[in-house]
Amino acid sequence: MATTSRVKEILGWYESDNPGTKANLARFLNQGKLAGTGKLVILPVDQGFEHGPARSFAANPAAYDPHYHFQLAIDAGLSGYAAPLGMIEAGADTFAGQIPLILKMNSANSLAVQKDQAITASVEDALRLGCSAIGFTIYPSSDYAFEQFEEISELTREAKAAGLAVVVWSYPRGPELDKAGETAIDICAYAAHIAALLGAHIIKVKPPTDHLSLPAAKKVYEEQKIDVSTLPARIRHVVQSSFDGKRIVIFSGGEATTKENLLVTIRGLAEGGAFGSIIGRNTFQRPREEALALLDEIITIFKG
Amino acid sequence: MATTSRVKEILGWYESDNPGTKANLARFLNQGKLAGTGKLVILPVDQGFEHGPARSFAANPAAYDPHYHFQLAIDAGLSGYAAPLGMIEAGADTFAGQIPLILKMNSANSLAVQKDQAITASVEDALRLGCSAIGFTIYPSSDYAFEQFEEISELTREAKAAGLAVVVWSYPRGPELDKAGETAIDICAYAAHIAALLGAHIIKVKPPTDHLSLPAAKKVYEEQKIDVSTLPARIRHVVQSSFDGKRIVIFSGGEATTKENLLVTIRGLAEGGAFGSIIGRNTFQRPREEALALLDEIITIFKG
Amino acid sequence: MATTSRVKEILGWYESDNPGTKANLARFLNQGKLAGTGKLVILPVDQGFEHGPARSFAANPAAYDPHYHFQLAIDAGLSGYAAPLGMIEAGADTFAGQIPLILKMNSANSLAVQKDQAITASVEDALRLGCSAIGFTIYPSSDYAFEQFEEISELTREAKAAGLAVVVWSYPRGPELDKAGETAIDICAYAAHIAALLGAHIIKVKPPTDHLSLPAAKKVYEEQKIDVSTLPARIRHVVQSSFDGKRIVIFSGGEATTKENLLVTIRGLAEGGAFGSIIGRNTFQRPREEALALLDEIITIFKG
Amino acid sequence: MATTSRVKEILGWYESDNPGTKANLARFLNQGKLAGTGKLVILPVDQGFEHGPARSFAANPAAYDPHYHFQLAIDAGLSGYAAPLGMIEAGADTFAGQIPLILKMNSANSLAVQKDQAITASVEDALRLGCSAIGFTIYPSSDYAFEQFEEISELTREAKAAGLAVVVWSYPRGPELDKAGETAIDICAYAAHIAALLGAHIIKVKPPTDHLSLPAAKKVYEEQKIDVSTLPARIRHVVQSSFDGKRIVIFSGGEATTKENLLVTIRGLAEGGAFGSIIGRNTFQRPREEALALLDEIITIFKG
Amino acid sequence: MATTSRVKEILGWYESDNPGTKANLARFLNQGKLAGTGKLVILPVDQGFEHGPARSFAANPAAYDPHYHFQLAIDAGLSGYAAPLGMIEAGADTFAGQIPLILKMNSANSLAVQKDQAITASVEDALRLGCSAIGFTIYPSSDYAFEQFEEISELTREAKAAGLAVVVWSYPRGPELDKAGETAIDICAYAAHIAALLGAHIIKVKPPTDHLSLPAAKKVYEEQKIDVSTLPARIRHVVQSSFDGKRIVIFSGGEATTKENLLVTIRGLAEGGAFGSIIGRNTFQRPREEALALLDEIITIFKG
Repeated sequence: MATTSRVKEILGWYESDNPGTKANLARFLNQGKLAGTGKLVILPVDQGFEHGPARSFAANPAAYDPHYHFQLAIDAGLSGYAAPLGMIEAGADTFAGQIPLILKMNSANSLAVQKDQAITASVEDALRLGCSAIGFTIYPSSDYAFEQFEEISELTREAKAAGLAVVVWSYPRGPELDKAGETAIDICAYAAHIAALLGAHIIKVKPPTDHLSLPAAKKVYEEQKIDVSTLPARIRHVVQSSFDGKRIVIFSGGEATTKENLLVTIRGLAEGGAFGSIIGRNTFQRPREEALALLDEIITIFKG
Repeated sequence: MATTSRVKEILGWYESDNPGTKANLARFLNQGKLAGTGKLVILPVDQGFEHGPARSFAANPAAYDPHYHFQLAIDAGLSGYAAPLGMIEAGADTFAGQIPLILKMNSANSLAVQKDQAITASVEDALRLGCSAIGFTIYPSSDYAFEQFEEISELTREAKAAGLAVVVWSYPRGPELDKAGETAIDICAYAAHIAALLGAHIIKVKPPTDHLSLPAAKKVYEEQKIDVSTLPARIRHVVQSSFDGKRIVIFSGGEATTKENLLVTIRGLAEGGAFGSIIGRNTFQRPREEALALLDEIITIFKG
Repeated sequence: MATTSRVKEILGWYESDNPGTKANLARFLNQGKLAGTGKLVILPVDQGFEHGPARSFAANPAAYDPHYHFQLAIDAGLSGYAAPLGMIEAGADTFAGQIPLILKMNSANSLAVQKDQAITASVEDALRLGCSAIGFTIYPSSDYAFEQFEEISELTREAKAAGLAVVVWSYPRGPELDKAGETAIDICAYAAHIAALLGAHIIKVKPPTDHLSLPAAKKVYEEQKIDVSTLPARIRHVVQSSFDGKRIVIFSGGEATTKENLLVTIRGLAEGGAFGSIIGRNTFQRPREEALALLDEIITIFKG
Repeated sequence: MATTSRVKEILGWYESDNPGTKANLARFLNQGKLAGTGKLVILPVDQGFEHGPARSFAANPAAYDPHYHFQLAIDAGLSGYAAPLGMIEAGADTFAGQIPLILKMNSANSLAVQKDQAITASVEDALRLGCSAIGFTIYPSSDYAFEQFEEISELTREAKAAGLAVVVWSYPRGPELDKAGETAIDICAYAAHIAALLGAHIIKVKPPTDHLSLPAAKKVYEEQKIDVSTLPARIRHVVQSSFDGKRIVIFSGGEATTKENLLVTIRGLAEGGAFGSIIGRNTFQRPREEALALLDEIITIFKG
Repeated sequence: MATTSRVKEILGWYESDNPGTKANLARFLNQGKLAGTGKLVILPVDQGFEHGPARSFAANPAAYDPHYHFQLAIDAGLSGYAAPLGMIEAGADTFAGQIPLILKMNSANSLAVQKDQAITASVEDALRLGCSAIGFTIYPSSDYAFEQFEEISELTREAKAAGLAVVVWSYPRGPELDKAGETAIDICAYAAHIAALLGAHIIKVKPPTDHLSLPAAKKVYEEQKIDVSTLPARIRHVVQSSFDGKRIVIFSGGEATTKENLLVTIRGLAEGGAFGSIIGRNTFQRPREEALALLDEIITIFKG
């Protein structure tokens, strides 16, 4: 299909990137049911690494098979599929060229003592497996934040030189941040901004609450009357915080929840100008037909 | 011998690997008495590194000689032999081409203060010594887990580019895991899954008990009614957790024990669909003729 | 199978090689119907590069398919299969681990202006494709001979360090050698000796005639009464010229010819102590069943 | 001199090594008064690094001069001389080709905060200085053990590729090992075994006492009735623990002591089948003539 | 044995070389029956490469076996053995450490169109095979001379850094040099001087005749009354031309000839102050006992 003017506009924002990286970004934007709209819905499956296989897949045992997820993402008309090395290796040949892939470079796990992530893949792996992007999680505010920033910086440099795109999951956490702080609007906007500053092409954050965590920030938000009263307002603020909307920012659907709750969130994201969503557990832990129907509703919302 | 359809099916699961790696995987699957069945029995001798020479070999002093183990593995019709650098160097020329070798890249030792493993070999060593695979141990949940994940990721990349296979021993342990937790079924399944996600071709874990260690996992196992009541059921769950059975998962025979106890375990493994076993102490600490007879019984069980 | 004492003796001649290279040599010696005998029959298919597809495959169109040749070599119980990069790539996955492969590193072609060979593969290719050896053609006496010697020297060093074996096709030709000279016994023995001096593990030459080409050599052959009167005598001399028989020397079956002529040659090779034969056109240009029957007769002759 | 059958037998144990490494091993075995016997007496002078100059050399001030030690080793008919970079550099030219040299790659020092060793030389240094081997100390059981294992693994790979031999001093120490444990027979045998597993050609340990340190080991020694009652019995056990006697194991003479005590130890080593001894302080801290006489007595004992 | 003052004096001339290179030079000077005298007799076997196997070995068929030459050089008490890669590889393990080896890096062959030499080995090969020196032939005055000078310059730099010695065969030939010119005294002295200028440690030239080839040189020889009337006088002049005798210059015995002619030449060399001889065909083309007797006479002459 011809590239739409919206896709061209979005690619134009990444003006220092080489044509290889732009072509890979374009693959996400031209894929599936949202092709050409500038919106993205991505399936991430790093749940097995983070929570172990049973917590991830026992609810829908077909999902133990790595092929299941490739097929689900393709059949649902999604924009891309993200997973750690082993999961990608297990299907990259069968589904070669059928959906843009994000190789998740680092992963946490529930067994770990350190609340860090280990780097378990390389840019060379991404190339040999035909991925369009690398994915990386940072934990701003954690003990490991600086090390992670330096890791993603090196990987980003390598990835961009090789014409790949970079997706950053930015999840604030750490000793000085309480649970409410992790999704506070000031923190979430800050996390998105840090990812943009690190050179991310696609930024993934959690939907923020109206909580304000940092006293210094709270003061400014109040003085400047920044509207954080509704989810759309908050999303708008996070998008603005990402280079005035010139970086693709997508949001998770949050914890596994009811369909109705999830769709309320998605409508809020869409209204606030989010570029889309990353939906993991909420899809692959449901039976396949139910997941396909749900994803179709989500896509319809983003199509607007 | 011609490659059987079962071996072809298994090789097909490793769809992103190059023919070099598949040829080396095929060497294990086409070797010895289990050739063509898709089952593997491997002799590992890193006991000397882990427990010292007397605890490993005094019960059967012929085993002090590195050649003893090569010859035992060949005469027993096993699928492969795994050992650290020095042991492989001491026999790789005499037994060149007679049995597929796994160069154990890291090793623990009982003298060590750190409960980690040191890397004591390289992919170049594996090539010059004619090995078909590298072997590596990870300790998920330990203080060293992330460092180990990053080490094995790098070695895996190098090994795969050179056409070698990768065998990962996944042994959870660490400050937050009690003794029962180390072999709990949820932990063991998780450990196997992590190895698969790290890109392992062959995964080695311990036979799990019916204990459930992580509260969050326990809840899911109970809700989802995952059967962990018998060894075969648990093995089936671990195999399922390894990409729905699309990765080779083998199990240790456990601590040195009586022949009868060992055979009960082996029967449980076989019934549960394990791809085979790694049997160290239980063989080389017995007199040679007894070990050969025992291995023959084990092989017969796996042949089914 | 257990390595025979003959195979062990042969491996012992390659005393400066690492166990990796010996294991790969052993793979050829332990393969197929001649396993353990110290004899080799190898199928080479670089004919398409040298003469073009129609001249190579039109006589037996099934042979246009690269899989045809892998399958033929396996079904005939041959010791190995040699071909250029593209041919190996086209079947290395399907037939992984089923027959030892020789990656032909350089190739001539009938379209070429220069009567040289281009290097079209690397040691890394050999590793990723699971090959056991690299193959290389030299043209002693040609304008390109020295360049070729330097190329094979470098590739040999790399291959040996990576545990691969080296097969050298030594085909004298050039401006000062007439057609009769190319297969003269003095030239052929010299060509085999050069390959041995370059570090080849397996040497491939053409069956020599009783012609003597170099005047200085002719004088010595006559003075020393070197018997070159029969094919067996000449083969014996070529084998002696290859480090007194301590390098594997194999011979082509010569031009495409009648079955009877070919078998006469093979009997001469076997009687003279050749280590075997490389048979290309004489097999794949015949119908498959006829080729299999012919190869079986050849193997029976070498079995003695 | 012609290589004796004993030397050939010993070289044969290092079956995966290249001829360069074997030639350098042969240099030690063919040197001095013990040439051809398979026994070695080596002079090490890293005392200055470890204890400072006065503690090392004030008792015999001639020993401040690096040339003194080269000359002593040569005049005494020893098998080799080992020292850190500076000491080797200070005499390697004057004594070029007169005695095989071991370049000590790491060294401890009494000023150090960390009870580790610093790497102070490289394989390239060993080549430019004409050394036949690199030497390296590991401290199994120390906080630095794993780092040291990884360092020696890399240096060993480099050294072997360059045709050098590798000598490992294996000295257990660390927070969980009391003074008696450092020379306990189970620990000493374990230390020798670890060095063998790391790929050492020559292993140097301290003469063990009959103490048993690790409870798990103690149990096995008692159950298996391993004789540790006399020094010869213990030496025999350490040699057995080093690949059933297929690695060269040599022992220090222990702390500086009286001549009589030292000779008692040496006789015990010889009777137990030690491959020889490393004698430092006990020689160069005595007047030269006395040291020469003492070394002659030691050599006579090892000659048997 | 202790290094003699003569050997120390000779090593002192190579004042910019590192101790590694000096130790390797010392190995030649301390080997065999001439050990310590400063004289060398070396066995070179690159005849097979240059003239083919029959012309080289048919006169004494035992010599087809590479081991024959190692053993001959050792049994005759020679100073070293030089051969191309394949010949060295075929015996370097069996004879490890028994005689210093020179790896011949380039070789000519009678089949070649170009009157050049191909580089067929590397410094890495020399190290892994335990060689003490690399050997290289240059053809001053040939079309290939400059290329050869540049090749040996690079190899020399590498060899010296790795502690190896460099032996240069300097054989003038080329379009502007007639047959008589190739061994003319002015040309021969010039050839030795060029080798010295290129950094050779040991220079090998042919015994010169009293012919003077270059008109400009002829004029000087006559004006300066340089004595070239006898072989000893000419040898003295060649030695003087090699840094006033401060480089080791050795001479071939010339074409295969009668024993008496050869001994006359050897006496001339010795009288003129040659450092020794390289004797190939004149030894290995004779029956072994005859060769040993001849070499003993030659050695006796050089011992003086």
